Amino acid sequence: MATTIGIDIGGSSVEAVTRDERGRIVDRYHLPERLQGGSHVAASALAAVRALDLTDCVAVGVGVPGQVDQSTGLMRLAVNLGIGAEPFDLVSQVENVIGLPVAIENDVRAAALGAHEMMTLAGTGPNSLALLSIGTGISAGVVVDGILLRGAHGMAGEVGHVVVDESGPICRCGQRGCLEAVAAGPAIGRAWPRGDSDGAATALFAAAAAGDSAAVKVASRITGHITTALIWLAAAYDTEVVVLAGGVASVGEAFLGVVREQIVRRAASSELAARRLRPEQVTLADAVDPPGARGAALLAARHSLQERVSPAGKQASNANE
Amino acid sequence: MATTIGIDIGGSSVEAVTRDERGRIVDRYHLPERLQGGSHVAASALAAVRALDLTDCVAVGVGVPGQVDQSTGLMRLAVNLGIGAEPFDLVSQVENVIGLPVAIENDVRAAALGAHEMMTLAGTGPNSLALLSIGTGISAGVVVDGILLRGAHGMAGEVGHVVVDESGPICRCGQRGCLEAVAAGPAIGRAWPRGDSDGAATALFAAAAAGDSAAVKVASRITGHITTALIWLAAAYDTEVVVLAGGVASVGEAFLGVVREQIVRRAASSELAARRLRPEQVTLADAVDPPGARGAALLAARHSLQERVSPAGKQASNANE
Repeated sequence: MATTIGIDIGGSSVEAVTRDERGRIVDRYHLPERLQGGSHVAASALAAVRALDLTDCVAVGVGVPGQVDQSTGLMRLAVNLGIGAEPFDLVSQVENVIGLPVAIENDVRAAALGAHEMMTLAGTGPNSLALLSIGTGISAGVVVDGILLRGAHGMAGEVGHVVVDESGPICRCGQRGCLEAVAAGPAIGRAWPRGDSDGAATALFAAAAAGDSAAVKVASRITGHITTALIWLAAAYDTEVVVLAGGVASVGEAFLGVVREQIVRRAASSELAARRLRPEQVTLADAVDPPGARGAALLAARHSLQERVSPAGKQASNANE
Repeated sequence: MATTIGIDIGGSSVEAVTRDERGRIVDRYHLPERLQGGSHVAASALAAVRALDLTDCVAVGVGVPGQVDQSTGLMRLAVNLGIGAEPFDLVSQVENVIGLPVAIENDVRAAALGAHEMMTLAGTGPNSLALLSIGTGISAGVVVDGILLRGAHGMAGEVGHVVVDESGPICRCGQRGCLEAVAAGPAIGRAWPRGDSDGAATALFAAAAAGDSAAVKVASRITGHITTALIWLAAAYDTEVVVLAGGVASVGEAFLGVVREQIVRRAASSELAARRLRPEQVTLADAVDPPGARGAALLAARHSLQERVSPAGKQASNANE
């Protein structure tokens, strides 16, 4: 059976999977490594491909934490990988070595598609879903009516600098009260200064779960902002599910529990908020079957199908109406 | 040449157009009338159809200010038409009389599609566009990657109760600082109590244009909130254009001018905001060629095409991936 390989390239690790045509993950690869610069990124992608079985592989998909231009296949602005405003051609670098077509997508967009496929395979297939990644930055990937949103510059769902509190603190972007300024890892680190920002989130939600009153207060405030964001994601895209991912969400149940409490609290004061988002509609990304690598593999499968149908085509796979 | 009729049913008027296959508007109808209740709405839709030439007409599309279930074709929660939670079958009532297929869509969603077609015909065709309707309520319709977003309940773009100011006034929905609570017609009426809410907007922006310092202050605050919304629309959907529509936007250039000033002001303090949205990306809906009726006619054309391809199908036309 034909397979594709999906690679999720993060700032501190590379996750890869082999996915078969039925959507089953048949092989996995994980490399914890801090990547810096285009050639290092390309080498790590190739290492991931080589570590997996290429026998039946027809295409490779890569998810990258940056902006992707689907018309050229070029990536840029992947700050965590040391790739700046200058476009970088990861696709050609990998294609030239392995001789298979390579698809590329923003990592959070790929993860949304992967999460959507996982739920569809599990039989709970939502028509529409958002995946909110909360880490050093905040971003969302969105599937509406079964289709991955890309937008004019491949940046649909880049909601980190949406203002949730016009009276809030000044963000590094210059606006006041952006979601990132009040709820991302660094904001948690400032509000609960114990260790680095990921460590701060773990420490904060553990302390809140243990009943530390200062921690409860800070955790409520942070997750209150996240709840505002979850409700507007549900409203803006009319999603049935919001999946939480990224470093802060990887704290796990202790984090999800406080988020759900905030949703219940908001619902108590607003019937509309209650209708928009019920606590059980918010879930955590699967830690065993990481959605980013699966989504990249799914994009590779679609890409390969499209190459067969229309060899010209580096068209976005959802520009089909 | 085959034509379709599109009808935009508002709380205080009915607009209808005949659109040919090339997207040209070949006939128009306008009826200023306050509609109340399902049978009144159906009668007005039929009056609009009868007033236009049905000779070449193959289908009719209707835009309604409420929630539409595309799987059943039923509408509900069109408060301005006196239609509540009980589903109403406008489609059958019109189909049974005229004997042509009838498509139905939320009015703001239809308007977004109409605005997208108009720009495409004008050669400025954006890949992605949002239409923000600001009147008694606030709502958006969104086209991303050329496709109209619907979402799980046909409510993608219902952004009136997105919180823009967590420290703002309590909204009638129970949340604090919703966009509607700070920027819709009634909020303008409270902030500038001259006449009814549409009249208040006209009076406010005229006074601001004339240099009245109290009016300038209120207009800046209101359009500041609208600017926040415009920037997050641009970010959430990665749109190239945001079209302003609805009663408040119908104030026209005096309103648009202040909105653009606010965008320039926001850009001065945030490079990111400047990149997301330039003043010229925000425009007013065409008053001569109303996008709602055109969009409804376009949906009718697609619906008719689909009926021919798959007679079974009341499927949403964008559930094609």
